Amino acid sequence: MRVFGIDCGTEFTGYGVVEVDERARTPKLKYLCAGAVKLNKKDRTHTRLAQVYAELMTLIAEWSPEVVAIEDVFFSANAKSALKLGQVRGVALLAAANCGKPIAEYAPLAVKSAVVGYGLAKKEQVQYMVTRLLELAVAPEPFDACDALAIAICHIHNAQTQEALRR
Amino acid sequence: MRVFGIDCGTEFTGYGVVEVDERARTPKLKYLCAGAVKLNKKDRTHTRLAQVYAELMTLIAEWSPEVVAIEDVFFSANAKSALKLGQVRGVALLAAANCGKPIAEYAPLAVKSAVVGYGLAKKEQVQYMVTRLLELAVAPEPFDACDALAIAICHIHNAQTQEALRR
Repeated sequence: MRVFGIDCGTEFTGYGVVEVDERARTPKLKYLCAGAVKLNKKDRTHTRLAQVYAELMTLIAEWSPEVVAIEDVFFSANAKSALKLGQVRGVALLAAANCGKPIAEYAPLAVKSAVVGYGLAKKEQVQYMVTRLLELAVAPEPFDACDALAIAICHIHNAQTQEALRR
Repeated sequence: MRVFGIDCGTEFTGYGVVEVDERARTPKLKYLCAGAVKLNKKDRTHTRLAQVYAELMTLIAEWSPEVVAIEDVFFSANAKSALKLGQVRGVALLAAANCGKPIAEYAPLAVKSAVVGYGLAKKEQVQYMVTRLLELAVAPEPFDACDALAIAICHIHNAQTQEALRR
């Protein structure tokens, strides 16, 4: 199973691809790629949205994941920032839908619990665990790319649990 | 000049097309069409977003406006509803951008001022004035379609004022 994780943001939208061989005796996570779509604050909103959409469409088509996993947005922000984040999240969901991929959504609490074992873990803790779980030499940069990998790992853990329960 | 107005909503996303012959001695507004993309609450978010995007892309291509005018969102809602509305607004902006149309954004206050002459006008007042300005026999339904026409009229009034100032 190959999972494409997306962490939406108004400045950086992170992405990360993680694979797991489900038939292996001890399934191991495999890092494939990670990065972020960097948006220029000087560009108008629709230009930035078109950039996120085009880049995600290209990446999803290129990596051809079985699932796209995306973070459910954190609601404590004010209405104005929630609206801006919603715009980016809307085009990210659209990119996944228009690539014909199933979409899984996870709350930040679930992502942190799955990766660190503690829902209120700090960014640095998530980064440390993602680096260890994927056996990387250095932590993925920026934080948004790391968060996207965490979301992909969260989906894999969740799918493995569902599968174990089914058996 | 032909303007395609969009009024985003999580249940109905209204649209309306208005034209004006700028070379006429007394430029008159002409109604071309109005309606709403109705979303099914039972569908998952990405399915609804894909529907809004596809329908708006088709309509914008079909009516071929010079400009797409869209409402700037109203911020008094809570963060959760702002996020949901942001998602719809994101794909509406993307549809306009991917059709290669220039985009104009207007605050609700500006739209109501342009149509009714009073920024805090009620929905019914906007509906009454849109019906009169476009010389329609009946008020456009639903309210979202009417609001989209109001946004298009607002852009036309604004463009006429800019043009008059330029001269």
